[in-house]
Amino acid sequence: MASSVLPTPLLKDELDIVIPTIRNLDFLEMWRPFFQPYHLIIIQDGDPSKKINVPEGFDYELYNRLDINRILGPKASCISFKDSACRCFGFMVSKKKYIYTIDDDCFVAKDPSGKEINALQQHIKNLLSPSTPFFFNTLYDPYAEGADFVRGYPFSLREGAPTAVSHGLWLNIPDYDAPTQLVKPMERNTRYVDAVLTIPKGTLFPMCGMNLAFDRELIGPAMYFGLMGDGQPIGRYDDMWAGWCTKVICDHLGLGVKTGLPYIWHSKASNPFVNLKKEYKGIFWQEDLIPFFQAVSLPKDCTTVQKCYIELSKQFKEKFGKVDDYFNKLADGMVTWIEAWDELNPSAAALPNGPAK
Amino acid sequence: MASSVLPTPLLKDELDIVIPTIRNLDFLEMWRPFFQPYHLIIIQDGDPSKKINVPEGFDYELYNRLDINRILGPKASCISFKDSACRCFGFMVSKKKYIYTIDDDCFVAKDPSGKEINALQQHIKNLLSPSTPFFFNTLYDPYAEGADFVRGYPFSLREGAPTAVSHGLWLNIPDYDAPTQLVKPMERNTRYVDAVLTIPKGTLFPMCGMNLAFDRELIGPAMYFGLMGDGQPIGRYDDMWAGWCTKVICDHLGLGVKTGLPYIWHSKASNPFVNLKKEYKGIFWQEDLIPFFQAVSLPKDCTTVQKCYIELSKQFKEKFGKVDDYFNKLADGMVTWIEAWDELNPSAAALPNGPAK
Repeated sequence: MASSVLPTPLLKDELDIVIPTIRNLDFLEMWRPFFQPYHLIIIQDGDPSKKINVPEGFDYELYNRLDINRILGPKASCISFKDSACRCFGFMVSKKKYIYTIDDDCFVAKDPSGKEINALQQHIKNLLSPSTPFFFNTLYDPYAEGADFVRGYPFSLREGAPTAVSHGLWLNIPDYDAPTQLVKPMERNTRYVDAVLTIPKGTLFPMCGMNLAFDRELIGPAMYFGLMGDGQPIGRYDDMWAGWCTKVICDHLGLGVKTGLPYIWHSKASNPFVNLKKEYKGIFWQEDLIPFFQAVSLPKDCTTVQKCYIELSKQFKEKFGKVDDYFNKLADGMVTWIEAWDELNPSAAALPNGPAK
Repeated sequence: MASSVLPTPLLKDELDIVIPTIRNLDFLEMWRPFFQPYHLIIIQDGDPSKKINVPEGFDYELYNRLDINRILGPKASCISFKDSACRCFGFMVSKKKYIYTIDDDCFVAKDPSGKEINALQQHIKNLLSPSTPFFFNTLYDPYAEGADFVRGYPFSLREGAPTAVSHGLWLNIPDYDAPTQLVKPMERNTRYVDAVLTIPKGTLFPMCGMNLAFDRELIGPAMYFGLMGDGQPIGRYDDMWAGWCTKVICDHLGLGVKTGLPYIWHSKASNPFVNLKKEYKGIFWQEDLIPFFQAVSLPKDCTTVQKCYIELSKQFKEKFGKVDDYFNKLADGMVTWIEAWDELNPSAAALPNGPAK
């Protein structure tokens, strides 16, 4: 199906770029041609007295820990500290329909022809065209230029579903866990796979927050990155957590999740020894958490993301509260997150998506 | 995970190439460097008195309709005539562990570097490495060179599942249905997607028989291409039918289905008007058939492909026998197919795969 011609820059007034950081944002220089038209929300992690330099010419707002505490009051407890999970505060304070979030060690990648990839533009294309979660299309995204649904694809499903999430990938340093980093320190991702595909309904995936876009109105309240980092027994599972919850809720509400293009250039592997310390409980726990999310079922009266999320927190607490007290804190954090979201986004709280057919 | 070094030519004595045809097999000249080491099973469709020329130097056996009738007797009724569905007879008479089937209008494709693609070798690699049906890996095939499981992929699932099916794709003429062919007569597939991926458990896909390999020991008896063509109200749904049944049974038995690489070059679009006549009932029926296969559940005591297939035929007949008498014939054909399979493959009939965990 031919894609329609889109204005440039796409969605200029409807999208915020959220960047968690602890350092000067020199990496934005490289992104200037693509990001400068958009508004940035910078979440400064760590020491709030440190000054973060933002290159000239960018339109941004910056929040440090003191700002978060001031805005959320006691509810600030649901926002992680000293972990990139703090980025989800930016999702909450945004007033835009779409979010793109990117790590500050991600640079502009090149496609096989050597052309710089406008990652944001590809994410927007992904979000503005439907997903196909109910049946697999073997030629990948049927809405892409030069593609379509193949023989045997039910015609009743060709309208697809609204796309809630666009998950982009990484050239150079792949997103590996600490054990794999340790075993394969030299491995680089050089394979450019020219495809976008919908992750089928009922299938979970490891969602990485490095290069991620989503429709805030459709799925925003599920994009909670959990309790990680300072004072918590775990790190580097913030995006995984958000991915499990988001996918389950998208499946329930009949929304689509895409993965594939665009690529960014991931410049630097984080320290595998530090990562192992952050991850090891997660590696252990995910063996039980993932089957829970694979099996969980949300009742029909969960017609909004918020209702789904609160229900998920209840079922999660019931199942895992006995396993480790951290899970009770996390379940409470989920509820606090939704309360804070609705406080900052009063009009959106009432909007039902309706359950999937 | 690094793939191990494999002998060349791969699986020479363990794989048959099955080709349904009505004409001289000149297309084999192009495939000579890749196919000549292997044994061919040619299923001659249509007029059995016609002589089919096979280029010199190929090792082959050829079956026409008289041969099929002679070998199967009254059970030959389950093998379609005047439709490429007849290819499944070749699956049944093979004594090898692996099958590759290809249409006679498929030529050798080139990768983006201009190198000729050894499609068969890629299929064999796909079949010899595990699948990942239980969780999605965002960097595609984790067993490919330079790839692995990404962060957040459960370690308990990294052994994967045995691969039963490798579904290859097509450059140039895409596999479109008649309505899409009519609407987009000039569309060509030029997108080379450098990926192999597992179709997740619980997800159906439109399986095309043009460029398809499978493990006959793991899934052979499910690769029945139905009753199509001469005397039947439908055509061009033979591979779709086999795909629905195969995927449901693979999911039940814990086997994997891959799609993606390798590409072949599909040279010529078939006539869309003729195709429309063959397809129109299928286009209508698939709207009910696919939900049936999406919802069907096989009991635990179905521990072999044969048992699964017979159970599927029962449930299918019960649900669709009233819709059209053709479905009663098809359900009976499924049973006859299994009887004929077990007659020609007496030792395999007793081998249980065991149900999925």
